[in-house]
Amino acid sequence: MIIRERDDDMTVELICVGTELLLGNIVNTNAAFIAEKCAMLGLSMFYQSVVGDNPGRLEELLKTAMERSSVIILSGGLGPTQDDLTKETAARVMHRELVEDVRARQEIQEFLEKRGRSITDNNWKQALVPENCQVLYNANGTAPGIIMEEGQTRMILLPGPPNELIPMFEEQVYPYLHKLQPEIICSKMVKLCGIGESSAETKILDLIETQTNPTVAPYAKTGEVHLRITAKAESEQAAYELIMPVEEELRRRFGNLIYTDDPEVTLEMAVFRLLKENHLTVTTAESCTGGLLAGRLINVPGISEHLKEGYITYSNEAKEKLLHVPEEILKEYGAVSAQTAEAMAKGGAQAADADVCVAVTGVAGPDGGTKEKPVGLVYMSCYCKGKLYTEKNQYSGSRSKIREYSVASALTLLRRAVAEYTNEVNGCGL
Amino acid sequence: MIIRERDDDMTVELICVGTELLLGNIVNTNAAFIAEKCAMLGLSMFYQSVVGDNPGRLEELLKTAMERSSVIILSGGLGPTQDDLTKETAARVMHRELVEDVRARQEIQEFLEKRGRSITDNNWKQALVPENCQVLYNANGTAPGIIMEEGQTRMILLPGPPNELIPMFEEQVYPYLHKLQPEIICSKMVKLCGIGESSAETKILDLIETQTNPTVAPYAKTGEVHLRITAKAESEQAAYELIMPVEEELRRRFGNLIYTDDPEVTLEMAVFRLLKENHLTVTTAESCTGGLLAGRLINVPGISEHLKEGYITYSNEAKEKLLHVPEEILKEYGAVSAQTAEAMAKGGAQAADADVCVAVTGVAGPDGGTKEKPVGLVYMSCYCKGKLYTEKNQYSGSRSKIREYSVASALTLLRRAVAEYTNEVNGCGL
Repeated sequence: MIIRERDDDMTVELICVGTELLLGNIVNTNAAFIAEKCAMLGLSMFYQSVVGDNPGRLEELLKTAMERSSVIILSGGLGPTQDDLTKETAARVMHRELVEDVRARQEIQEFLEKRGRSITDNNWKQALVPENCQVLYNANGTAPGIIMEEGQTRMILLPGPPNELIPMFEEQVYPYLHKLQPEIICSKMVKLCGIGESSAETKILDLIETQTNPTVAPYAKTGEVHLRITAKAESEQAAYELIMPVEEELRRRFGNLIYTDDPEVTLEMAVFRLLKENHLTVTTAESCTGGLLAGRLINVPGISEHLKEGYITYSNEAKEKLLHVPEEILKEYGAVSAQTAEAMAKGGAQAADADVCVAVTGVAGPDGGTKEKPVGLVYMSCYCKGKLYTEKNQYSGSRSKIREYSVASALTLLRRAVAEYTNEVNGCGL
Repeated sequence: MIIRERDDDMTVELICVGTELLLGNIVNTNAAFIAEKCAMLGLSMFYQSVVGDNPGRLEELLKTAMERSSVIILSGGLGPTQDDLTKETAARVMHRELVEDVRARQEIQEFLEKRGRSITDNNWKQALVPENCQVLYNANGTAPGIIMEEGQTRMILLPGPPNELIPMFEEQVYPYLHKLQPEIICSKMVKLCGIGESSAETKILDLIETQTNPTVAPYAKTGEVHLRITAKAESEQAAYELIMPVEEELRRRFGNLIYTDDPEVTLEMAVFRLLKENHLTVTTAESCTGGLLAGRLINVPGISEHLKEGYITYSNEAKEKLLHVPEEILKEYGAVSAQTAEAMAKGGAQAADADVCVAVTGVAGPDGGTKEKPVGLVYMSCYCKGKLYTEKNQYSGSRSKIREYSVASALTLLRRAVAEYTNEVNGCGL
């Protein structure tokens, strides 16, 4: 865990408004999204709160927030109904009247007409904005966002639905906050696969404990760890000069476990790029993951050139019929064995006439485990142009967790196999 | 959105402690979990907060919480490191000393020894508990939970990791809170598929707007809507007598769209049960969903008796080769067409020798859309014992959203086909 709280002037506080959050109807993903963006900007966030659509409690919370934070971000409660009172309450504590914004009214009308939805009197409420504010027009909904400034306080109101909040934040709020931050903040993300969070953290504990600028923060994902290096400086170049030696140090420590330094690139995209560079076709042969591995690869647009088909062979019969796994192997070693995984990988590549095949077979549970083959035991094998790469893994957790981790490991194994092939062909590393 | 805030004495407030939440490293799923459980218990929650591992700010927040709420639930900050100060801070505001709990010390030792982990001096810090508290022993980690009572205030401390918090809450905190609630709270969940959230809400708006006891709250899931009916009464039977007419009314309004009234049953489990009751085997033929549909069906333990294999046919060649889709159909109507979906369903059932086959083909985007076949257009067809059920859907959103919604719709279509078959065979409804 990274402590990066600073007691300086520019602190951000987040208030999410919505009774549905207090009832647990939805998970507050907006909070994590906004918090991560603020951390990227080097802005300290000390408090997040959730309140219902209750103007009294919201007003009280806003007043407390104004005493302790300089930037207050609110999400939710900008809808057209009588219950939505965030704008009215925020305007009141900022001593502003609400006035109609002509462009907002026009955009609401266009938005609803385009979708063939009838316009009710309620909708015009959404065109009202506090006087002297900056309006954040909303291409994905009818609630405009709002920025108000008063003395040292900045208040930013955002609509609650993530498909409206996220683009509005990225396109309009992020640049606004960026300008407030007197220093330039730059960050770089390196993404690792094939290493657990605690092992990754242990490897860089010395960096984390002594860091001031730049900082390194680990973000745990299923089967992956992402490390963000963030630096503050007077110029972008100065910031990158601070980042570079840390990045080099991370590369030295983690080597080929780093699959990308592009925040937009997922593990399946990294695999896709390797396949593309090497003109390789791939197929999948899945037992316990039952389609989830192919499902992730097919997340990548454009993979159709490389992945034509995949096999879900949940039963022994299907392993024999579709992948030509010899009956003797299944009998002698069982469906969950290195031998079966390898036969699946070889057989899959042959059946699909593909250069590469990754195969997974395991005990996902909750039943079916034995002393020799407990729940969570998963074998995976990757056939790549004549070579086999085989792995045995033991996971814990629920059936779905075991399957998710298996998919992440299988993608990691696939990446390693294709990378080693690249290496051999080109005589160079990843 | 349901407003169910009541200004009575028993209000719960949630405080999640963790700098990783303020940095957006993780999403606060604990908050949604605890909030939903409290709502089920009929306890009102007016505030949720997040603070970092900062004793000053936590103490201030605890004092505010004690003024406005009677039950304060804290999560996180019970770890063994110097940063973890939730217990120390909570004990201070409750005026308690920390003392060692013998059983907690013993359990910590056993927990770590069993896993071959070395015990450091830090670990013994976790065996300290406030005097006169109720200790919540933790089978899944080294941090015990704590309940303190003082006058009208009840403070409950829980470990942050969900795999420790969830079982501790369910087994120990839920029964404790249940006893606090003078009335009996009962709830019933009905789960719908094949209807959107707003349509479902519109259909019961009159019930929602006039409700007091019982209440109906909709929970939106991908391609599903869950409706929870909650009643308060003096006895369990009286509560169920209040629930029953509402449940009947929901059944009248939603009919076969209701797939279960068991909160533990997922859509894929409902499908599995129908397959099992009718001794039917099933297979999948997936283009744009590329394995995700089979992946969800294989979430159900025990489905291996009914699903032996599945096909991922992303290319036209694979559709011809594995599913025997006639070349002419692909040429005349294209891969994304009702005709191709039907040929995939029929061909898949034949290839796998299965009674049922559900097929999906569509444009998941972001590229590949045309004016006639835009991104988000997805055809699905279910072959069931000689009959074909075919559907055309138009989704919006990202590639992954389109694929997720397609899977939910395909499961819904599969359920409908098998249910109609059941109906014909048995001469009765779902």
